[in-house]
Parts: sequence; C-alpha cells; structure tokens
Amino acid sequence: MREIKSWVFWRAVAAEFVGMLLFIFVGLSAIIGRDEKGVAQELKVSLAFALAIATLVQSLGHVSGAHLNPAVTLGLLVSCQISALRCVFYILAQVLGAVSASAIVNGYKVRDSLGINKLNVSEGSGFVIEFLATLQLVLCVIAVTDKRRSDVKGSAPLAIGLSVGLGHFAAISFTGCGINPARSLGPAVIQGKMDGHWVYWLGPMSGGIAASLIYDFLLYPRTHSFRSRIDILLNGPEDENNAAEISEEDSCTPGPSQWPKH
Amino acid sequence: MREIKSWVFWRAVAAEFVGMLLFIFVGLSAIIGRDEKGVAQELKVSLAFALAIATLVQSLGHVSGAHLNPAVTLGLLVSCQISALRCVFYILAQVLGAVSASAIVNGYKVRDSLGINKLNVSEGSGFVIEFLATLQLVLCVIAVTDKRRSDVKGSAPLAIGLSVGLGHFAAISFTGCGINPARSLGPAVIQGKMDGHWVYWLGPMSGGIAASLIYDFLLYPRTHSFRSRIDILLNGPEDENNAAEISEEDSCTPGPSQWPKH
Amino acid sequence: MREIKSWVFWRAVAAEFVGMLLFIFVGLSAIIGRDEKGVAQELKVSLAFALAIATLVQSLGHVSGAHLNPAVTLGLLVSCQISALRCVFYILAQVLGAVSASAIVNGYKVRDSLGINKLNVSEGSGFVIEFLATLQLVLCVIAVTDKRRSDVKGSAPLAIGLSVGLGHFAAISFTGCGINPARSLGPAVIQGKMDGHWVYWLGPMSGGIAASLIYDFLLYPRTHSFRSRIDILLNGPEDENNAAEISEEDSCTPGPSQWPKH
Amino acid sequence: MREIKSWVFWRAVAAEFVGMLLFIFVGLSAIIGRDEKGVAQELKVSLAFALAIATLVQSLGHVSGAHLNPAVTLGLLVSCQISALRCVFYILAQVLGAVSASAIVNGYKVRDSLGINKLNVSEGSGFVIEFLATLQLVLCVIAVTDKRRSDVKGSAPLAIGLSVGLGHFAAISFTGCGINPARSLGPAVIQGKMDGHWVYWLGPMSGGIAASLIYDFLLYPRTHSFRSRIDILLNGPEDENNAAEISEEDSCTPGPSQWPKH
Repeated sequence: MREIKSWVFWRAVAAEFVGMLLFIFVGLSAIIGRDEKGVAQELKVSLAFALAIATLVQSLGHVSGAHLNPAVTLGLLVSCQISALRCVFYILAQVLGAVSASAIVNGYKVRDSLGINKLNVSEGSGFVIEFLATLQLVLCVIAVTDKRRSDVKGSAPLAIGLSVGLGHFAAISFTGCGINPARSLGPAVIQGKMDGHWVYWLGPMSGGIAASLIYDFLLYPRTHSFRSRIDILLNGPEDENNAAEISEEDSCTPGPSQWPKH
Repeated sequence: MREIKSWVFWRAVAAEFVGMLLFIFVGLSAIIGRDEKGVAQELKVSLAFALAIATLVQSLGHVSGAHLNPAVTLGLLVSCQISALRCVFYILAQVLGAVSASAIVNGYKVRDSLGINKLNVSEGSGFVIEFLATLQLVLCVIAVTDKRRSDVKGSAPLAIGLSVGLGHFAAISFTGCGINPARSLGPAVIQGKMDGHWVYWLGPMSGGIAASLIYDFLLYPRTHSFRSRIDILLNGPEDENNAAEISEEDSCTPGPSQWPKH
Repeated sequence: MREIKSWVFWRAVAAEFVGMLLFIFVGLSAIIGRDEKGVAQELKVSLAFALAIATLVQSLGHVSGAHLNPAVTLGLLVSCQISALRCVFYILAQVLGAVSASAIVNGYKVRDSLGINKLNVSEGSGFVIEFLATLQLVLCVIAVTDKRRSDVKGSAPLAIGLSVGLGHFAAISFTGCGINPARSLGPAVIQGKMDGHWVYWLGPMSGGIAASLIYDFLLYPRTHSFRSRIDILLNGPEDENNAAEISEEDSCTPGPSQWPKH
Repeated sequence: MREIKSWVFWRAVAAEFVGMLLFIFVGLSAIIGRDEKGVAQELKVSLAFALAIATLVQSLGHVSGAHLNPAVTLGLLVSCQISALRCVFYILAQVLGAVSASAIVNGYKVRDSLGINKLNVSEGSGFVIEFLATLQLVLCVIAVTDKRRSDVKGSAPLAIGLSVGLGHFAAISFTGCGINPARSLGPAVIQGKMDGHWVYWLGPMSGGIAASLIYDFLLYPRTHSFRSRIDILLNGPEDENNAAEISEEDSCTPGPSQWPKH
C-alpha cells in the first residue's frame, strides 16, 4: 500500500484520466464525423484508434505506462506487473476519462450517433470475437514490454497502436470493436443504451487474462515465486517505487518510469 | 539576443520557411486533387498531413527543430525550450512559407477550392475541437522530445507525424482540421476568406499552451528556477548556442542541432 | 535431432500454432466483415494482413521467429538458418493453426464467403504474381534478419509486416493474394473448394526459394561450407540450441531466442 | 574508375536492377488491379509505392544504397556521395529493371491500362508539381542518410518510403505522380505512349538537384574541397571501396555497405 503515499502514483492515475479523455475524444469524433457506413469508414475508425493509442502511449508511457484500457490493466495485474491498488485506481480513472470525453463529444455531435458499440452477430459470437481481438492486443503489450527481451528495437508505442488497429480490422464489422471496456462504457452511459453491454466487459477482460496466462506460462515462462507474486500484488514491483530517486538530472523531478527500460 | 548573430539561427529560420512551403504545397495539393467529399477523402488528407510532418521533421529536425506550426512553437516557448526571439522569427517564417505555398497551389488548382478550413459546427464547438486536437499534438511533441526520457526508441518524427494524422481523424469532419494557425491562414489569405478564422488561431494556440502546462507542471514536472526561465526566454537554452562548436568531423560545418539527442 | 528434446523447441512450435490461429482469425474476419468489392475493401484487407504480421512477429518473434508462413519457413531452410526438423514441424503447426482459425471464423460468418483465394487471371499469370509477391516478402525477411548487417535500425517486425501489405497491394486484385500457402489452405479446406489451389503452394514456395538463392548467392553472398550446411539442416544453427543457457536474469526461464540479436 | 573492377560494384548494379523490377511490378500491379478512379484508388496506389520503397530499401540498402530512382541517384551525385560511373550504371540498371517489369505486367494485365503517368494540368504546372514532390523526397533521402547526424533513430527505409507516399498524395491527381523517371519510362516505352514525357524527366531530375543544393549549401552546409569533390566523382567516396575488407565475420563475403552506418 506504500504506493498511495507517493506523488508519482497519483500523477500516474492523472495521466490515465487525461489520456483516456483524449483517447475517447478523438475516437468518438472520428466515428461520428460522417454518416457513411462502409469499408472506408471502417478504415478511418480503425486507423484513428490505432494512431490514438500509438500517440498517447508515446506521450504518457513514461508517466503511467499508458494502459488506457481496463483489459490491459487487468492483464498486467495477472502477469504480476502492477499492484492490485494500482489496477483499481487505473480502471476508475479510465472509466471516468471515457465518460467525461463522451459527454464532451455528446455536446457537439451533429447527429444522434455517439459511436456506441453494437453487435451484428449473436452474443456468443460477439464474445469470441472480442475475446480473440483483445487477446492479440494484450499479448502484444506484454511481449513488447517484457524486460527480459533485448530484441525489441522499434517503437513499442507504435507496435501497440498497430495492434489496436489490427483488433479493429478484425472486429469492427461484427461488434463495432470494443476490446476496451471503458471505451464501450463511455458513450453507452451517456446515451443510456446498455443492451448486450456485458459482452464488451467479459470478452476483453477474459481475453486480457488469457493473453497473460498464455505468455507467462506457455510461450515464455516467468518463474516468480508465490511470495514475490503476493508482494507485487500488494506493493507493486520493486523498481517502480524507487524510480523517483533515479535520474534527477536536468534540474527536474521526474515522475515514475513504469514503462520498461528495454 | 546573442542568437541573432549566428548563421545557425538564420539557417533554422530558413528551414522553417522551406519546410512550411513544402508542407502546405503537399497538404493543399492532396486536398484539392479530387472533388470527392467523404470518408475516403478524409483518409487521404489525414494521411497526407501525417506523412508530410513525419517526412519534414525527419529532414529538417536537426536544422531548426522543424516545428512547422505556430502552436508547437508557442508550446515550446511556454515550456522554456526556445527564446522569445526564435519564437517570433519562426512564426513569421511559417506564415510566410504557408502563404507562398498557397499562392503556388492557387496557380495550378483545377477548381475553386484551395483547402480552406471551414466550420461545420458552432464556433464554440469548433474551438473545443481545435483545442483538444492540438493539445494531444503538442503533448506528443513535448513528450517525445523530452531530454529527460531514455525510453523513446522509435522515430520521433514519425510519432509526431502520426499525432498530426490523429488530430485530422478527430477534427476533419467538424472544422476541416486546422491545429496549425499558419496552415489555416495560408489559403484563407490568398482567397480572402477569413470568416470565423479566429477559431483556427485561438483554439490551437491555447491547446498548445495547455499541453505545455499540463506536461510540465502536472504529469512530469520540470523545476527550472525563475532565473533560468528568464534566461532561456532571452537567450535560448545553453546547449543550442554551443552546438556549432561540436562534431566538426567529416570536414563540414554542421548547423545547430536543436533536436534533442535522446 | 537434438532440438526435439528441448522445451524451447516445442514452445516455438506452439507459438507458430497460436500465432497462425490469431493471424487467420483477424485476416479472414477483416475480409468477410462487409460485402463490398472495391478498392476500399482491398485497402482494408491489405492493411489488416500487414498489421497482423507486424503485431504477431513483434509478440512471438523471440519465441519461434514467428515465420507464420510455410514459404518463409522454406526460404529460411534453403538459407541454412533452420533445421529440416524445425521446418517440418513449423509448417505442420502453421497449417493446423490456419485450419483451426478458419473453422472458428466459419462459425460466426454472416454470409457464405470465408475469404478463399480465387484467381481472376490465368493460372500461369497467377503463378507469376504469387511468385514475385512472395519473392519480395522472403527477400525482406532474410535481409532484415541478416545477422551480418548492423544498419537495420527500426522495427524488423514492422518492416516484415509492411512487406506483407505490399504483397497484398500487388496481388489482391488478381489472386486475392495468397503469398502464404497455409493462409490459402485454411478456408479452402473448411469449405472444400480447392480449384487451382496448386498455384497458392507452388507460387509462394518457389518465390521463397528464389529469394533465398538470390540473396545468399547473388546479392550478398554467404560462404557456409558444405559441411556446416549439412550440420545446420540436421541440428539447427549453433547459437539457437545454446539460447536456453543464456540470460537467466529476472528469475525466469527464457525460451529460445531464435530472432537475431541484430 | 577503380570501382568497376570490384564484385561489390556489380552486385550493387544487380541490386538496382532486381529492386527496380520488383518495385515496378508491385507498383503497376497495384494501379491496374481495379478499374476505379477516385480517392480510394489514389490511397491504394500511394500506399503501394510507399511500402514498395520502404521494403526494398530495407532489403537492398546495404547492397547498393537502393536508390531505385534516377532522381535520387542524380541528387546523390550532385551531393558528391557517389561516382559518375556509379551514377551512369545505376540509372541504366533502373531503366532496364523498370522496362522489364512493365513487360511482365503487360503480359497479365486485365485491361488496356498499364499505369502510365498522364498530365491533368498544363505541362508547366506538371513540371512545378513533379519538381516540388521530388524535391521533398530527395531532401528526405539526403537528410536521413547524412552521416554527420546522430539523431536519426527510427528506420531510414521507412522514412524514405513515407516520403514517396507523401509525393504521391500531393501529385497523384495532377500528374499521376512520377517523381521517378524510370518508373514513368517503363510502361510508356512498352505501350509506346510518350506524350509530354519530358515533364517526368525534367521535373524530378531538377527537383533532385535542387534538393541536394539546398541541403548541402543552405540548410546544413558541407565543405568538401574542390579536389575531394573531383576525386569522389571519379572514384567514389573512400569508405565505400574499403567496405569489402571490413567485417568478414560469420564466414561470409559481405557486399559493399554503401548505406551509411549512422
């Protein structure tokens, strides 16, 4: 629980709120701009969400990790990379940011639509699609930020952004593409349309958990002891809490550097 | 005021002019090429502006920093990274470059349009959209060029270009997407259509200032003393003025290397 | 044959299966989402396949090399970079993954189509197109992962993904773009439509072999002795089998690091 | 003239031929695939040419520099980075590769079109557009490969590819976008349609020269002596001819590494 007393923790929570607000502002604006339904619109929306994550992870990754997605935050909790407390506050900040942005966009929308995710397939199929599309995203997040790797050379934020774009190309025709419960919740709350909304929580959340388990136990095993797992859940990983002491150069107070120094 | 006596300062101003001329040439040409209004056209324009900034920052970043946008220049002034004098001359060069390019494109345009930004929403909504879309751009610029970070690994010019593309995906249906007062001014001056033009200055400029304040004071605080702030405003940052002395290898006279050596 | 006894080998085979399943899931979903035939659809599909490879090579490259394509696996065999045994098991895993994913997508498809590759030109022309489009892909894979180079600076997974996108831009109108026999086989098996299917095996496979020979003997010669070639075919390259002993840091058991440490 | 006796020189010429053949194959195939004229088609073609250059420069840059464009080769000659002999043989190989690929594509084309560049504006306007669109490309090539810079961090091939895409976004509606005389010549020769063809040579060639002069004399001056300039024109730069002696590791004979080791 020691994190809660540090400024860097609260700056990170603030970054998740600011980032999510900007993310949902650009995402919903891109969706509702024109009243076209077709492949060109799918391209625009997919690229908008991809670039939004690439940009915001680039801008905020060193402050909070820039999860900007409850499924990512949960996946990282299961992978023992953040504390339970951080998980809870991040998800709260993400939901708050998404709802705030939805309210802003609702203020200038030029037609009824607010970019709410809707199912064009059965709820079961929707669950499978959201599950797999989120699985590849969280797998990408966990793999490119794995500190054991030395072979990741390009931009990790861009790689994660492209993975978000990929999820959209796969899912957008069928579910509108959630793969992010906070993104689905925001406009649904503002317009009070919550039909089948459980799919957009259960699918991504279980996809995130599955990605974490497949990576950590099957593909590239990590061997944290049970004790160190419990310690991380309670207190967060070691290095993160010491980050404030490091690199005080350039006469400034650096925030937490949770983003791996790969 | 010592900058004004150095060749590297005037080369940087020339680079802002040349870069802005090429930027507005490609941007306006992409807009007016075909008479389609729809999502595909929005995609083309968004990607053209994104690639233009990615390319020109890559080509000119080491000469002038390649701001190519008064809102970026103002944001960096507020963040105490350039002198007031540089801010003024850069903005003048940017405006001159944008107007020159607009005149060139006006010479071969195949229909009336010259890519002038117009509002499809109220002026208030337009202000909010331009404010937020520019905020994410200047936040990205300041974050990826932050010399305190060691975790930025990919191409900073590409990251900034993608952020420009993101701003377009968000704003293009509503305001045509300015997020750059010089870009909005160029064609408007040449065709003498200045209605609601204030939105394209006030929105981006205040968005740039807000990004700078949020980053420097809330998310990742810098602690320049008041004295060092004044010194930078008057004379520019230390290292920049010494750049001409460094790395004289390869029998050439290098220009200023204002772009951070992250 | 010593590889077969190591966990890292089987983890690599599992990664090829998981990766191929996700690859074909996103690829086919992107194709069948909307019933549009036109350039916008070609754009969506090309970008979806490009981002899929970029993302999955990023996520799995350090586990298996993330070939995700029998033509790539064969090209690397010809280039003496993997053992014959690895080649066989990878192709089996890739085919199994592709068929599994096709079955999943077949379960929620909203119309008859399942993204089967079909020829719009003669079989001879189709062969030439598949041959050349795969040649540029395998050439890219072999060149960016060449351990002798020190000039590859950006993201290798992204470069390979973009090369896949390029192959699609070239071939999609004529053959639907295979350039990957397992991708072509998956949906064809599930729907039992195998007309002209040989083109999608012979074209890519011979393109992959040609790329390997052009690079290794003409453009940038390698001089493995005959003896070392035979040894690699039987046992795989040296470093790969020792990978498990290296870098045991961070209290985890690392998988094989077949992806070059360029 | 000493280059002409080395294998690495002829391998480089071969790489320009192979690269140009693949480049024109994918470019023309992308253009003629569908009979749509509109913004979506412009997007597809622009991205295809962008990814083609990004991929082929990635694959062949270490063998020949991967100019794949007479305007780039001429720009590098003016910038004193290659010998006159190399310039001549590269341009011959590029033209030969482009004509060969055009003949191949002509063999399987499904309608009359072969992607010939045509003017939709006056020849004068076409010249200006080709001039400026090539200027930004050659400026990007010279800037990202400038060995004096240490701030270029991402992928140089990708940066150059995106610059090619940018040229297309600007010019495609007006001139079809040449910015590469060999690319314009290939299909025009095969179909014998050479009207206004001079624009596609003079525009790009003078744009390439202008970019080189602006960069080397105005923006970021180089101070080669007159004597060293003459020596480079006759014999090529020093390091290139010694490249064959360097880095003989991994039991192979490396080709020339003309691509800067930035």
